[in-house]
Amino acid sequence: MKVAVDAMGGDHAPEVVVQGALKAASEWGMDIILVGDRDLIDKKLGSNQGMTTIEVHHCGEMINMDEPPLKAVRHKKDASVVVAFDLLKKGKVDAVVSAGNSGATLAAAIFALGRVEGIERPALPGILPSENGNVILIDVGANVDCRPDHLFQFGIMADAFAKTYMAMTNPRVGLLSIGVEGGKGNEQVRVAHDLFKNSPLNFVGNVEGRDIFTGQVQVIVCDGFVGNVALKLSEGMAEATAKMLKENMMRSFAGKAGLFIGRRAFQRSTERLDYAEYGGAPILGIKGVGIVCHGGSSVKAIKNAIRMADDYAKSDFKDRISRQIVEYQQSVA
Amino acid sequence: MKVAVDAMGGDHAPEVVVQGALKAASEWGMDIILVGDRDLIDKKLGSNQGMTTIEVHHCGEMINMDEPPLKAVRHKKDASVVVAFDLLKKGKVDAVVSAGNSGATLAAAIFALGRVEGIERPALPGILPSENGNVILIDVGANVDCRPDHLFQFGIMADAFAKTYMAMTNPRVGLLSIGVEGGKGNEQVRVAHDLFKNSPLNFVGNVEGRDIFTGQVQVIVCDGFVGNVALKLSEGMAEATAKMLKENMMRSFAGKAGLFIGRRAFQRSTERLDYAEYGGAPILGIKGVGIVCHGGSSVKAIKNAIRMADDYAKSDFKDRISRQIVEYQQSVA
Repeated sequence: MKVAVDAMGGDHAPEVVVQGALKAASEWGMDIILVGDRDLIDKKLGSNQGMTTIEVHHCGEMINMDEPPLKAVRHKKDASVVVAFDLLKKGKVDAVVSAGNSGATLAAAIFALGRVEGIERPALPGILPSENGNVILIDVGANVDCRPDHLFQFGIMADAFAKTYMAMTNPRVGLLSIGVEGGKGNEQVRVAHDLFKNSPLNFVGNVEGRDIFTGQVQVIVCDGFVGNVALKLSEGMAEATAKMLKENMMRSFAGKAGLFIGRRAFQRSTERLDYAEYGGAPILGIKGVGIVCHGGSSVKAIKNAIRMADDYAKSDFKDRISRQIVEYQQSVA
Repeated sequence: MKVAVDAMGGDHAPEVVVQGALKAASEWGMDIILVGDRDLIDKKLGSNQGMTTIEVHHCGEMINMDEPPLKAVRHKKDASVVVAFDLLKKGKVDAVVSAGNSGATLAAAIFALGRVEGIERPALPGILPSENGNVILIDVGANVDCRPDHLFQFGIMADAFAKTYMAMTNPRVGLLSIGVEGGKGNEQVRVAHDLFKNSPLNFVGNVEGRDIFTGQVQVIVCDGFVGNVALKLSEGMAEATAKMLKENMMRSFAGKAGLFIGRRAFQRSTERLDYAEYGGAPILGIKGVGIVCHGGSSVKAIKNAIRMADDYAKSDFKDRISRQIVEYQQSVA
C-alpha cells in the first residue's frame, strides 16, 4: 500500500506534514509519496532524503486555506492536493492524506474518484471521545445547507463506517436536534426524523448536544454547518479546560503539589481529550480513500492519519460501505 | 420589586424551585410569589410557610416539558407560566422566572407583554465562561429556521444586553460560522455577514466554535438551533470532563493523593465550568422581564435566576435595550 500525502496542506506545512510522514515511515514502515514543492520538501527531509519508503512527487502549485474550493480545484491543475488525487486515480497510490483546505480536498476527491452510487453528497465524519467509547459525528463540515435526505445518506454512511472501520456491532444512530421529541428541531431535522424512523438503521431518535459525550449513541447525524461548529467547539473547550485547570492548580502551593503527585493520572485524563488520536477522517461516499486532517494538525495527527489511510485502503471497508449504502437506500425507496 | 416564580416549571419542580426561592428570600430578602398548585407548594415550603417575603398564587394547570408550546399556552389559560406572566401584565409583579418548557415560557411572555418595536423574534442569550470573561451566545433556542435579518436583530439585542447588564464597554460581536472568511458558512450566515458589516456594531466578522472559549469576542450570534446544540454540548462536555478527570485521578494512589492535596484549586476550576453561576437568561426583545432557566436547574441556579430577575427589573436596562434596538435598526434601514 502506498499513501500520497499533500505536503503543502495545513497550517504548519510542509514542516509538520513532512515530520508526520517521517514518523509513519520510520515507526510503521509506511510507503509514502510526499506531493508538493520538491525543494521545500527536501529541505525538511534533511538527512532523511535517502529513506526508501519516502518519495517526493513535485508539483508547482498549492491551494491556500482561504481559497474558494471549487474554483481553486478547477483552475490549479498542478496544486498538490489535485495532483495527489490524480496519482490515486491513475493507480500510483492507494490513498491520499491532506491537512489542507478541506473543501478543496473534498472537491479534488470527488472530481478524481467520483461518488458512490446513491450518494449525492459525500460527507466527513468526526470521531469524538465519549464516556462510553467513540462517537461518530457526521457531517463535520463538508456540506452546509443540506436537505433532509442528505442527512439520511450521512446516517447510512456513518453506520456502515461504524460497523466496518470502528468495529461497532449495531451502532445506535441519533439525529442531532434541540429536544428529544420527534417534533422538535428545525424543518430540516423534523423531515429527516421520519426518513430515519422508517429505515433499517438502529435509529434511537433525536439526541441533544450533551449526548455527544455520554456515548448513549455511536452515530450522531447533523448538517455540516452544525457539525463543524460542534467539532470546533469541542476542540476549543477541551483545550481551554485543560489549560485553565493547569493554571488554577499552579496558582497555589497545594495545587502545584497535587498536580505533581497526581501528574500521571492528570495526563491520562487530558490525553482522552486529545483529538490527535485519530489523525483525520475519511471522506465517506467517494470511490476511493481520501483522509482529511485538521488544518492545525500536529505531527502525531499526521502520522495517525497516514496509518488510517493505510488501514482503510488495505481493508474492504469502502466496498462494504458502498454495498450497505445501495442496500439501505433501496430498502426505503 | 416582586418576582413571580413558576413553581411547576423544571425537571425537579416544585421541590428545587421552592428551595431556590426560599434561598433567594432568606439570603437576599427577595419578594417572591410562587405560582402553581398551592397544596404541593405548601408541602415543600413546610415550616417556611409563614415567611412574609414568599406568597403562593394558586393555579390549577401546568405545561409539561414535551408539550407543543404555542398550543399549550393558547389552551391552558390557568397554567403556572401563563398565570405568572399574567400577574406581570397586570402589574402585580415586576418579573417572571421559569425553568419550565422554554418554548412555552417564551410564547407566554410574548402573548402577555408583546415585542419591543423593531424586533420580530425575541431571543434567548446564553452566558458562557471563557478564558477572558463571559461570552454571550445568542440565540440559544428560542428560534429555529431564522432569516439573516433575524440574526442581525439578535446581534443588536445582545450588544445592548452586554453593554447594560454585563457592563461591557464596546463588546466585540462575531457571527458563528465554519470559517473566518466572510464567504464561508451557509446561505443564512453569508447574507447576515453583510448586514452586520454595514452596521454600527463592533463587528469583527465570522468566528468559529472554538472562539466561544477564547473570549476574543464578547457576543456570538447564531440561530437558535445551532446555539442550543452548542450550549448543551458545552454543558455536557463540562460535566463529562470534570467527571472523567475525577475518576481518572481516583484510580491510582498518587492521583488520589494529588486530588486531595490540590482539592481547593481543583474545585475552583470546576466551578468556572459551573453553568449555575448565571441561573438563567432574560428573554430579549419583549416588553418586560422574563427569565428562562434550564429545565435541569439546581437550587443555586433558581436562586441566582431570581436575583437576575430582580436586578433586571430594578434597572432601566430593558428601556435602554429598546432604545438601542430602534436606533440601530434605523441606522441600517
